[in-house]
Amino acid sequence: TYDLCNCKQRFLYQILSTAFLMYQLLMSCNKIQINYLKIIQCDFLYFCFRFRLSQLNCTYDNNYRPLHALFLPDIPVFQDGTGIPLQYWGVFDGHAGSGCAIMASKLLHRLIRDRLGDIAHLLENPSTAPPICLAKNGSPYQAEGKKGANAIQDPEEPDAITDPSIRFHTEKAVSLESLIVGIIENSFKQMDELIEKEKVSYAISGGCCALAAIHLMGKLYVANAGDSRAIIIRKKEVIPMSNEFTPESERQRLQYLGFLRPELLGNEFTHLEFPRRIQHKELGKKMLYRDHTMNGWAYKTIVEDDLKFPLIYGEGKKARVMATIGVTRGLGDHDLKVYNSNIYIKPFLSCCPEVMVYDLSKYQHGPNDVLVMGTDGLWDVTTDREVADAVSSFLSCCEPADPVRYTLAAQELLMRSRGVLKERGWRLPNERLGSGDDITCFVIPLSGPAGPET
Amino acid sequence: TYDLCNCKQRFLYQILSTAFLMYQLLMSCNKIQINYLKIIQCDFLYFCFRFRLSQLNCTYDNNYRPLHALFLPDIPVFQDGTGIPLQYWGVFDGHAGSGCAIMASKLLHRLIRDRLGDIAHLLENPSTAPPICLAKNGSPYQAEGKKGANAIQDPEEPDAITDPSIRFHTEKAVSLESLIVGIIENSFKQMDELIEKEKVSYAISGGCCALAAIHLMGKLYVANAGDSRAIIIRKKEVIPMSNEFTPESERQRLQYLGFLRPELLGNEFTHLEFPRRIQHKELGKKMLYRDHTMNGWAYKTIVEDDLKFPLIYGEGKKARVMATIGVTRGLGDHDLKVYNSNIYIKPFLSCCPEVMVYDLSKYQHGPNDVLVMGTDGLWDVTTDREVADAVSSFLSCCEPADPVRYTLAAQELLMRSRGVLKERGWRLPNERLGSGDDITCFVIPLSGPAGPET
Repeated sequence: TYDLCNCKQRFLYQILSTAFLMYQLLMSCNKIQINYLKIIQCDFLYFCFRFRLSQLNCTYDNNYRPLHALFLPDIPVFQDGTGIPLQYWGVFDGHAGSGCAIMASKLLHRLIRDRLGDIAHLLENPSTAPPICLAKNGSPYQAEGKKGANAIQDPEEPDAITDPSIRFHTEKAVSLESLIVGIIENSFKQMDELIEKEKVSYAISGGCCALAAIHLMGKLYVANAGDSRAIIIRKKEVIPMSNEFTPESERQRLQYLGFLRPELLGNEFTHLEFPRRIQHKELGKKMLYRDHTMNGWAYKTIVEDDLKFPLIYGEGKKARVMATIGVTRGLGDHDLKVYNSNIYIKPFLSCCPEVMVYDLSKYQHGPNDVLVMGTDGLWDVTTDREVADAVSSFLSCCEPADPVRYTLAAQELLMRSRGVLKERGWRLPNERLGSGDDITCFVIPLSGPAGPET
Repeated sequence: TYDLCNCKQRFLYQILSTAFLMYQLLMSCNKIQINYLKIIQCDFLYFCFRFRLSQLNCTYDNNYRPLHALFLPDIPVFQDGTGIPLQYWGVFDGHAGSGCAIMASKLLHRLIRDRLGDIAHLLENPSTAPPICLAKNGSPYQAEGKKGANAIQDPEEPDAITDPSIRFHTEKAVSLESLIVGIIENSFKQMDELIEKEKVSYAISGGCCALAAIHLMGKLYVANAGDSRAIIIRKKEVIPMSNEFTPESERQRLQYLGFLRPELLGNEFTHLEFPRRIQHKELGKKMLYRDHTMNGWAYKTIVEDDLKFPLIYGEGKKARVMATIGVTRGLGDHDLKVYNSNIYIKPFLSCCPEVMVYDLSKYQHGPNDVLVMGTDGLWDVTTDREVADAVSSFLSCCEPADPVRYTLAAQELLMRSRGVLKERGWRLPNERLGSGDDITCFVIPLSGPAGPET
C-alpha cells in the first residue's frame, strides 16, 4: 500500500528544494541505460512538472516559465537482476496556484507504480490473459476462471457452471493492456482524491492539467486529462496520441450533467448554449441555441430561464465553463467556485484521463521518430504539422550520435513557439504573435533501447 | 405547419398499399432530372423504408426481406421555376414490429422539409450568416444582430450595445450548415415524439434505427441513429459517414446515466460492467469491472450491489442494454420494458442522430464515386473495404451510360453479403456464414446532377 507519511515528508522537502531549481528548460528523455529500472521495487526515471507563478507573469521573458526536470535521488535500488523496466514522463500545467501541479508531479507516477505492483505476477506472464476473478485473499492463482482444474465452482450447487467451455463463452476476455489502462485511469482518480484530502493541511492551491506517458512492455500509454497534447512523429507523419478536453470539446457532456442535475447550476446558469448573452427585453424573441443533444443550432423562443448565463460560453481559447475555467479535465480545483457565488465548478470537471495506446513493436522506428508532449502554450501557436516538420528537419541535421539532440529539438520547438522579440512584441516567423502562455515540451525518441532498433 | 390529419390518412393508406409492394429490391438513386424539386412547396423524391415481418422470418430466402422503394405519387407540383432542390434517402431498420419503421419512413423527411421551409429565406441567401436573433413575429429580416441599421437596440438603454463591431466580437458566428444540422437533429426528436403520441391510436409497435442522407445545396448531410452505416467511396478510398450506436460504443453514456439516476435501474441492474455474471457465493472475492469513467478494467471487491445484472452486458452483436436491446439510438421503443419487469429502457435510448457533413464541391467525383448506405445486415459480414472493392470493381465493368448500374451494384452487394446456398447453409466466398439478418442498401452516385461533373 501507499506510504503516505513517508511521502508527505518527501513531498514537503521537494517543494522547498525545487523552488530553487526552477529554470527554463526543455526536457528530452534520452535512452540511457539507467532508465531501465524495476517496476516493483522502484519505478521510474524522469519526470517533470510545470506551473505558473503569477508574480512572474508580467514580462515576455517570464512567460516561458518553469519546466523542472528531476532525476529523483531516492529511487530504491532493486534487489535482483530481474524486473520490468518502466519509463514515465509527466507534464502538469497548473492554474490558480502551483500546489496541485507540484503534488501531482511528485505522486502520480508512484500511484501508478504501486498499482502496477499489484498485478506484477500478471505482467510477468503477459501471454496469459488476466483472471476475471480473484479469490478473497487476492491471490491470482486461486482465481476462478478459465483454469478448469482450479475452478472453485461447487459441483453440488445446481447453478454451478463447471464446464470450462461454457464459461469461456459467457466470459468477456480482458487483455493485460486494458488492465494497465484501468490502472492509469484509477491512479488519476486516486491522485485527485489525495489532493482533495491534503489540500487543507498543505495549502494545495488551484488545479492542473495532466499529461502522462508510460512506456511499459513494448507499449506506450499516453494519458491525458486537460488541454496539453501528445503526438507521435513517425517518418514525418503525425499520429495524434491525445485529445484536448475543453469547454468546447466537452460541451455536450457538461450540458448533459446540467440537464440531469439542474441544482448544480445554482439557479444562475442555463445548460443551453446561446451565441451571446440575452437581454431581458429580448424575452419572447427567437434566438439560436443548442442543447446537449445537438451539434447544430436552432431557433427557440426566449423564455425567462434563458436569461441565465450559459453553462458553456465563449469560443476557442476564450471558452469557459460557468464563466470561470477554460479546461474541463484535470486534477484539483476542488475549491473552485464561480466568482462571487457559492456554486462549485468541480462537479463539471473530470479527473479521468483518456488513455491511448501505441504498440511500439508494430512499427519500425528510426532515430528521428519521436513522441512530442507539450502544453497548450506550444500547440496554440504551432500546429501538429509544423511541430512535425520542425522536429524532423532539426533532427535530420544533427549528428546521429549527439546525445543532446532531442533536448535541442525540444528547445527548438520552444523557441519557435515563443518567437523573436521585435518592435511589436514576440513574433513568429509568420509575423503572428508568439505564445503568451508558458510552454513545456518533451521530445522523446522512440527508437533505441526504448523501442525496436532499426 | 404539419398537416397531421392528412398525413395519417396517407400513412394508413400506404401501409395497406405497400404490403403488396414489398419485394427484395436494392435501390439506387440515379440522377434523374425529376430529383430536382423545390424545397419549399414540395420536398424530396426517393425514399425507402424497411422492416421485418416476423411471420416471414423462417427460411433463408426470407431473411433478405423487404426493401421498398417508392416514388411518391403525391409530390406537389411547384408553382414557379425557382426553388432549392433537395434529395433524401432513408433507411429504417425496424425491430419488435414494423409500425415505427413505416411511420418514420413516411414522415421524417416531411418534418425536415417543413423545418427547412422555416429558414427558406436563409437558404436563398447562403452567403449571409444566419441572424443570431429573430424578432417576435419570427421575421428574419427584423432580426437583431449584425445588421447595425436594423438593430432593435434602444440607444436610451444604458446597457445597449449599439456598436456593431463590439457585437461582432461578443457573438458566436453560426453557419448555415450548422442550422441545417440542427434541423435534422430536431426533426429526429420530433419524429420520436410523434411516434410516442400516435402509438396508441395507430398501434405503432417496436422501434427502428434510422439512417438518412440529405443532399442540399452542394452538401451531403448523413444522419445516423442506430447501427446502420454509410460510407462514401471516392477513388476507391473509404470515407466513413457515420458511426454505429450500440451498447458497446455508447457504454459510457449509458453507465453515466445509470450512475446519476440509479432509480432508472429499478434495483435490478448495476451501472458497472463485469465480464460475466457474479454468483452470490462470490461475495468478497475480487472481480474485474469498469465504470462510466473507465475504458480499461480493474479489480474490485464484490459487494451485494454487484450481484445485480450489469446495465451493459455481452459482446459484439450480442451486447445488450438491460439484457434486452442491442442498439442504443433510434426512434420508437417507448413501451419497451425489461422482460417480466416494470423497468423502461427508453430513458437509456437516444433518438438524436449524429450528423456528418460532406462538402461535394470540395472534391472531384467520377462516375464510380458513390455513397453506400446499408443496414447492419450488410456490414456485419462485409467490411467497408470489401464493400468499396466490390462496388468499385463492379461499376468499373459497367457501361458508363447504363442507367441501372448503381442498382445492379447494390444488388451485387446484397448478394455478396447473403452468400450462396450450399449444403451447410448460405456461405460467403470465404466460407463464413452469410448474413442471417435482412439487408438493405443504397448505392448513390455522387457525380452527375447530384454533384459536380467530372
